[in-house]
Amino acid sequence: MTVSNFDSREFRNVLGNFATGVTIITTRAEDGQPVGLTANSFNSVSLDPPLVLWSLAKTAASVPVFEQAEHWNVHILSVEQEPLSNLFASKGADKFANVELEDGITPAPLIADCTTRLQCRNAFQYDGGDHIIFVGEVLDFDAQPKAPLAFVSGQYALTARKPYEGVNLSSSEALSASYNEDLLGYLLGRAHFQMLHGLKTNLGQQQLSELEFYILSILGIQKRTDIDRLNAYLAHNNTSVTLADFAHLEQLGMVAVDQHQTIELTDIGKATSLAQIKTAKGLEQAITDALGEGEVQALKLLLKKVIKATDPGIPDLWQVQETAN
Amino acid sequence: MTVSNFDSREFRNVLGNFATGVTIITTRAEDGQPVGLTANSFNSVSLDPPLVLWSLAKTAASVPVFEQAEHWNVHILSVEQEPLSNLFASKGADKFANVELEDGITPAPLIADCTTRLQCRNAFQYDGGDHIIFVGEVLDFDAQPKAPLAFVSGQYALTARKPYEGVNLSSSEALSASYNEDLLGYLLGRAHFQMLHGLKTNLGQQQLSELEFYILSILGIQKRTDIDRLNAYLAHNNTSVTLADFAHLEQLGMVAVDQHQTIELTDIGKATSLAQIKTAKGLEQAITDALGEGEVQALKLLLKKVIKATDPGIPDLWQVQETAN
Repeated sequence: MTVSNFDSREFRNVLGNFATGVTIITTRAEDGQPVGLTANSFNSVSLDPPLVLWSLAKTAASVPVFEQAEHWNVHILSVEQEPLSNLFASKGADKFANVELEDGITPAPLIADCTTRLQCRNAFQYDGGDHIIFVGEVLDFDAQPKAPLAFVSGQYALTARKPYEGVNLSSSEALSASYNEDLLGYLLGRAHFQMLHGLKTNLGQQQLSELEFYILSILGIQKRTDIDRLNAYLAHNNTSVTLADFAHLEQLGMVAVDQHQTIELTDIGKATSLAQIKTAKGLEQAITDALGEGEVQALKLLLKKVIKATDPGIPDLWQVQETAN
Repeated sequence: MTVSNFDSREFRNVLGNFATGVTIITTRAEDGQPVGLTANSFNSVSLDPPLVLWSLAKTAASVPVFEQAEHWNVHILSVEQEPLSNLFASKGADKFANVELEDGITPAPLIADCTTRLQCRNAFQYDGGDHIIFVGEVLDFDAQPKAPLAFVSGQYALTARKPYEGVNLSSSEALSASYNEDLLGYLLGRAHFQMLHGLKTNLGQQQLSELEFYILSILGIQKRTDIDRLNAYLAHNNTSVTLADFAHLEQLGMVAVDQHQTIELTDIGKATSLAQIKTAKGLEQAITDALGEGEVQALKLLLKKVIKATDPGIPDLWQVQETAN
């Protein structure tokens, strides 16, 4: 279990197993130049007095500036600020050129739109091997309800908070050993069908079949298409259509099929498709309100990973191609 | 934006916006007693020499022990170790009574099954307001490929790592403003259908309709049921069945319907259902291999939250009820 030879790279890797947030620390040099860098070595220390700390490599160019600084600010980044994290982790570039700054209570640069900002007095500096540990007294702080960016094993990450009590769908203690509520396929199916159920209920469109619902969705994106292309997009629904399937939609005045068998939405069809999208977005907002913005972003990321991992080769639905007429 | 009155509770809350991992720190008192506590104030400090730090409240009962200790161990917890985190965050109880310990290179207790363990020499102690900052020199470490537990905003959390390049399903730069690949309903549907597609392809069971597939799944759990109960479970699939729908399944010898209209699987049906489950688990394993154990756990947690938030009132599928006969 133990590593006999102390491998510095491996040590660095295993430290990454401790999840962290991502911060940008800023200060202002004596000549007025703003200075900033990305750090995940931040942590809280004390509530009374309010102290926080972070570590800076002794080899960093900004060491003399931070050693002399009277103040520095800690910015805990949101999931939207990953590009900002990359910018401040880079060298050379004028990091502050396009960054929106706000007025703080000290001269240290204060970056806008962060999850949390801590304006600090440079209180203590402690020796930390090849790093200096900076301890700051928090003079003021503010926060916004934004999902925080995380960093795990050398990669940016989103977080999915667990309620203390956990989330169980079943009240049953002894779940069947072979088939239980933890089966991913079951969870994906049930979540999908409940979402679809909510959509159809809210739309009052029980007269449309599921297949017709999907046809309208695809035509809402692709505008004009033909049977073959439609079937390529429908492949992920395990279904396919023939021209006969459009009779009901034509009867409802939602779809028009011309003599070249090119299919497109009518104005009624477009309005129906837009109403579907609006309702879907409303349902998504309700789920976001229930789960939190960060959780929904994490869910979407994970679903995209599943889709990538299981894609049987469905053409890019969002790449709109003009149909020859 | 700024908070004019420094509110200590609010300060504590906003510090929680910085995501952390969760550690247990252990040492051994002079009398040989093992001592341990849960801390998320850990962070790495230095690579050469290898140093890490964590903070302990000056009011903690274990302060004298840690001040005098020659060694302590840091255990970075995995998602499975949430109960251990709670145990070591509690007071009073004999925390080590049921904890599996392993032999380390120092007398400090070494807990089994952690993501990462760092065996440290108690190197420096620094003042940190109402806390003491302990800096340890890492003498040895080991790691296991387990998903790390995280802590965000006062709650345990799972993490979903983002590849650096992000995950996009479409190569199209300009997605439709009204309907795009980020719509949760689309992602849920596509992930579900691709999973189902993989399942049916692997089973070579194209002769079963989707409805018949779901019927077998439910009967695999509920064993014996009737039409009304079956339809209550099928509600989340936006579908319902009549006795006529069982003709094909009876013909295949998978389902038996008795004179009381009680429905159950035959031996062939049971074998088919078990093969479905086995295949579903195989697909899930393939997705786990592609995404990582931690991501799949996070995905399941989030899907359960969506299901809870959108449940139209489906009865507990896993609560097996005996059908009166």
